[in-house]
Amino acid sequence: MINQYYTSMLSEKDVIFEIFQYAQEKAKIVGAENIYDFSLGNPSVPAPASVNDTIIKNVRELDALSLHGYSPGMGVPEARAAIAESLNAKYGCHYKAENIFMAIGAAGALAHAFRAVNNPGDTVLTFAPCFSEYKPYTAGASLKLSIVPADTDSFQINFAAFEEMLTPAVTSVLINSPNNPSGIVYSTETIERLAAILNAKSEEFGHPIYLISDEPYRDIVFTGTDSPYIANYYKNTLTCYSFSKSLSLPGERIGYLAVNPDCEGAADIIAICPQISRTIGQNGPASLMQRTIIDVCGDTSDLSVYEENKKILYDALISYGYSCVEPGGTFYMFPRSLEPDSYAFCEKAREKNLILVPGDIFGCPGHFRIAYCVPTERIRKALPVFKELAEEYLK
Amino acid sequence: MINQYYTSMLSEKDVIFEIFQYAQEKAKIVGAENIYDFSLGNPSVPAPASVNDTIIKNVRELDALSLHGYSPGMGVPEARAAIAESLNAKYGCHYKAENIFMAIGAAGALAHAFRAVNNPGDTVLTFAPCFSEYKPYTAGASLKLSIVPADTDSFQINFAAFEEMLTPAVTSVLINSPNNPSGIVYSTETIERLAAILNAKSEEFGHPIYLISDEPYRDIVFTGTDSPYIANYYKNTLTCYSFSKSLSLPGERIGYLAVNPDCEGAADIIAICPQISRTIGQNGPASLMQRTIIDVCGDTSDLSVYEENKKILYDALISYGYSCVEPGGTFYMFPRSLEPDSYAFCEKAREKNLILVPGDIFGCPGHFRIAYCVPTERIRKALPVFKELAEEYLK
Repeated sequence: MINQYYTSMLSEKDVIFEIFQYAQEKAKIVGAENIYDFSLGNPSVPAPASVNDTIIKNVRELDALSLHGYSPGMGVPEARAAIAESLNAKYGCHYKAENIFMAIGAAGALAHAFRAVNNPGDTVLTFAPCFSEYKPYTAGASLKLSIVPADTDSFQINFAAFEEMLTPAVTSVLINSPNNPSGIVYSTETIERLAAILNAKSEEFGHPIYLISDEPYRDIVFTGTDSPYIANYYKNTLTCYSFSKSLSLPGERIGYLAVNPDCEGAADIIAICPQISRTIGQNGPASLMQRTIIDVCGDTSDLSVYEENKKILYDALISYGYSCVEPGGTFYMFPRSLEPDSYAFCEKAREKNLILVPGDIFGCPGHFRIAYCVPTERIRKALPVFKELAEEYLK
Repeated sequence: MINQYYTSMLSEKDVIFEIFQYAQEKAKIVGAENIYDFSLGNPSVPAPASVNDTIIKNVRELDALSLHGYSPGMGVPEARAAIAESLNAKYGCHYKAENIFMAIGAAGALAHAFRAVNNPGDTVLTFAPCFSEYKPYTAGASLKLSIVPADTDSFQINFAAFEEMLTPAVTSVLINSPNNPSGIVYSTETIERLAAILNAKSEEFGHPIYLISDEPYRDIVFTGTDSPYIANYYKNTLTCYSFSKSLSLPGERIGYLAVNPDCEGAADIIAICPQISRTIGQNGPASLMQRTIIDVCGDTSDLSVYEENKKILYDALISYGYSCVEPGGTFYMFPRSLEPDSYAFCEKAREKNLILVPGDIFGCPGHFRIAYCVPTERIRKALPVFKELAEEYLK
């Protein structure tokens, strides 16, 4: 009989995708140029030329059998080594190839991290606002997900609520900085305080609390933002990374799990990753992409447009009377909605063909997300619409 | 705390991989030319030129943002349509694009199939000899796997044992034809009889019994072998396919799940596949590979070497006194071991640098697997060693 759990998921709306589909349909009626679609976090700048050049070079020069052949369960050794080196050079860590597990994007890395350092029934603690997919990700690993309410003044960590919710049932803590949807980057102060609490509580509880750090936006950080490399501050850190945003390759499904070499059980955690793959039908990213990453893992797309978009949009919104914590990175912004019900607010925006995502689905009502990974021209054209919307509320 | 279940999997030996590693190590000592390694099912013929040509064309001609961008949860629509068309042309079916779900190889397709048409605790019935990975695949979906003993005279289905084991707890039946490890292809007669039993029992039990057909070797069938397209014989069939073997692309992790349009709940089964993906960290195969498959899904590598290898090896083994059911496809052969303990037999072969895999790990003791996807020259060179081994037992 058809699976009941997955069938029940069909009735939980995938709000972001429905909004995106609405925008696509509406565009057919009123013309794409009249729809201001800020619903999806799809990179708007192409992959750097080095990616396509390397793909072509690999296809031309490598032996077809090894290029397209099975890669080892952990991933292509040279890709793992290149990533370790790149991290060490950039952040002064001491990863070796054997600390890196090649994964099918950040989603694949998280699927392994959740299963590696937790057992069914354990609790994972994360912080609002957070990516809506964390719920199915943890549910699929038979874990409970608890969400610490947001500190809406800063979108750093609400430590009072966190310490209250950090019970012995919590086996890992999940963070996402730079953050989707707020665009906020956790400061060194935040990470140091988080690490101190996790160390103290690990000792008190008599078991390690692992920090699972979801970092697909790590390379999209704006000028002047304090952006610590998290694993350097807490030894029991599993870093989940994807090249989706930094290299504009979301469809190629390539990323990795980096286990801090000083992590408790570091070798065992990596060792069981291929076992996890066997139970969830994964066998690593496409070999052609793994071989390409060897050469390009230190590169990025031209990410400057996101900072430019942020500046134009943020300055304008503030001048129109919106209230917003200024993003330090990503391509998201998370202002307060101009009425408490963010669904109603987004509905009103939608009447003006301005497509926004209500904050409730990120565990943070009273806000809305703008994905400003669009051509700058589109931002400029949308400003009068944001202004008009504000005037209706604030007149 | 580190996951106990996955840690326990580490102590279950991955026998095939250990054997392969032994062969690699031994090759360093005695020289690769003196090791006859028949352990791994890795294609030995390169991908057809059309694959690399299409990759290069796509990289050069397609817009980078759409080429490398997110693909829909179901897969790239044009790839789904091309696969449906190709199946219809080849087998006279009537798939539409919406019956096809793009998956990360056959493993990804099976991961979705198992979760789609079963609920946790249900029983999946399969047939010995069978692929050793079916155990973790079903365990990961919280399913019980029951294995029907082999009919070792033909490696078709042991129907007496099957009918006894087909209880109301069975919600799906898993078959793999052409078969790894036996190389046998289920005949039209076998499939018709299987379908008749499944239809009768579905009615008796009051619930559909789904047939999950794992077909990565479907395109490697030898001249004269009766090779029915299984979904044409039983409507509740989910076909899991991979381009790994037919196009020699095992590392690129691309395949699909095709749901028979007449299948009970066909639309729902496909609809929940992306929901399943959300819980197991998958988001479809690499977009570049999906776009490449649009053009090459009807092609194959030059697969004739496998038939040539089969003929040489099979004829020689029979002449040396081995007993073996002649394969109808794949690049595997599954003779009887010359002593009942297949581990002891393979150990004795190993002393002669002949690397074979014991049948026990496929649920079929007293046999051994030869993966003859190697250059024909290697087969010829190994023949005297097979002969010498037989002589020791049969003198």
